[in-house]
Amino acid sequence: MGIVIVGSVALDDLKTPFGEMKGAAGGSAVYASCAASYLSPDVRIVGVVGSDYPKKYMALLKSHGVDLEGLEIVKGGKTFHWAGYYESDMSTAQTTATDLNVFAKFSPRLPESYRNEPFLFLGNIDPDLQLEVLDQIKNPRVSFVDTMNYWITSKPQSLMKVIRRVNVVLLNAGEARLLCNTPFLQKAARELLKMGVERIIIKKGEHGCLMFTKNSYFAAPAYPLASIKDPTGAGDTFAGGLIGYLARNRRLSEIHYRQGIQVGTALASFAVEDFSLRRLARLTLKDIARRCEELRGFSCSPAIRFDGARKG
Amino acid sequence: MGIVIVGSVALDDLKTPFGEMKGAAGGSAVYASCAASYLSPDVRIVGVVGSDYPKKYMALLKSHGVDLEGLEIVKGGKTFHWAGYYESDMSTAQTTATDLNVFAKFSPRLPESYRNEPFLFLGNIDPDLQLEVLDQIKNPRVSFVDTMNYWITSKPQSLMKVIRRVNVVLLNAGEARLLCNTPFLQKAARELLKMGVERIIIKKGEHGCLMFTKNSYFAAPAYPLASIKDPTGAGDTFAGGLIGYLARNRRLSEIHYRQGIQVGTALASFAVEDFSLRRLARLTLKDIARRCEELRGFSCSPAIRFDGARKG
Repeated sequence: MGIVIVGSVALDDLKTPFGEMKGAAGGSAVYASCAASYLSPDVRIVGVVGSDYPKKYMALLKSHGVDLEGLEIVKGGKTFHWAGYYESDMSTAQTTATDLNVFAKFSPRLPESYRNEPFLFLGNIDPDLQLEVLDQIKNPRVSFVDTMNYWITSKPQSLMKVIRRVNVVLLNAGEARLLCNTPFLQKAARELLKMGVERIIIKKGEHGCLMFTKNSYFAAPAYPLASIKDPTGAGDTFAGGLIGYLARNRRLSEIHYRQGIQVGTALASFAVEDFSLRRLARLTLKDIARRCEELRGFSCSPAIRFDGARKG
Repeated sequence: MGIVIVGSVALDDLKTPFGEMKGAAGGSAVYASCAASYLSPDVRIVGVVGSDYPKKYMALLKSHGVDLEGLEIVKGGKTFHWAGYYESDMSTAQTTATDLNVFAKFSPRLPESYRNEPFLFLGNIDPDLQLEVLDQIKNPRVSFVDTMNYWITSKPQSLMKVIRRVNVVLLNAGEARLLCNTPFLQKAARELLKMGVERIIIKKGEHGCLMFTKNSYFAAPAYPLASIKDPTGAGDTFAGGLIGYLARNRRLSEIHYRQGIQVGTALASFAVEDFSLRRLARLTLKDIARRCEELRGFSCSPAIRFDGARKG
């Protein structure tokens, strides 16, 4: 069951209290593809790079079995570049430079072989481009969208069109609050459900995530880490792991989503342990399984039998 | 198995976006006692009020089986008064008035009948007073302490003495960060464990709570509420429910703590549904049990079997 992953492919200059890295492999599509590749052999990326994009990054994705037919290479162009830093609490990225470069004129084109794939992840890009992708893919079994504050503010109408056409909306807490104009995540999620979204997943960083449908509610913890080296890409890694797990099992039940969230959480926890893909790209399925097992232990809530009388 | 609960007994003027209430029953000892009373028949309160303290609040506590022998009444004195409001996101209380009144000269005295009780909760009061209580109680099986930013900043040495003498430290996230001077809760908790605290519980409001020992880690979600009328006392209610559950079962295993956290979380979720004790004081054990059951469902993470090969 193939997964089409659309999003940014970037060269990042990253700085955190734990070090820095220049020209790092980044972008939502790269993190999500790398994560999904541990679960599914059919991950297909859609994005754009310039001719400066390092061959070693292409090779890395290929070695993970990621199909690059949909990765457009603009000859003589420069790859999308993002520079940013994180302050001591690591919670928010401060952007110091965004050079769109080849991304400015990007118009995603799905290769013919991608158009019948059943799983679609629309990573954070211009919602008008996300709509173009939705027009090209034939009949996905399930589609996911992620976005960011910038599009919520600048292109709310296009974004709402996307949201109405996908099955699952992934947002971080701040985005959910902004999109639904309420400080309460429960209320934000209920509003999106009323608009017809089947499933909402709100990512809360160190506080884990929440998943809502009309009939179910799930709260998952994050994996506890004593230190985080570089939080870039954690949300995209999470999404890639979740979707990869669903595709692997070809099932979309609540149980499979909850398992997929464990997998996404585990992968994201590895990703932030080092810069860029350094840790994320060097995992085994066993590493991931072990962390999922730990996560279940951390959130295991034993049943209670209340007998009638209070004991003295 | 009796519980001694020491803390403030207050008359609160509360204002939230959902209304206001003047002269409301408040204070850490009152919320915690009311919560614990659903689980244990032996809840004993230690605090001070003036002669203005409404008889109906006394009657309410008595009707819940709370022992008031340790509640000192200062004739002609005025009860501790707190006034505050919450802004739209309900996350932080803004204080507009704090009149210590009889609380200013309070020196907690445990009645003889309280001194052999096995469970002790030191609610948020001056750590020097908490030390006085620790000097009076004989040999508690387990003791809990809560505090607030004010004492962390103004009396760090006294507070650290208390922390070294109790078994379980309850803090909210902001307090944990301030006390350990780090933005990372995992790191803060590990530092407190190194100092010899057996168990740390960090309360995160809408994000639930975390519990740490040297050998275990637990992350529990909050109960999802679409709206919160008045968050006052949620943390004390949580503590009262947890300790009440442990006392009820006379067991202090990791499993019992995890169950107790469910009970505390359920009780806190009821408490914030209305002002002061309006909702908290009108529950049945069945109400609490039902919400615990729901909480378990919300955090239930199914096991995963990863088979060797990735499926196509």
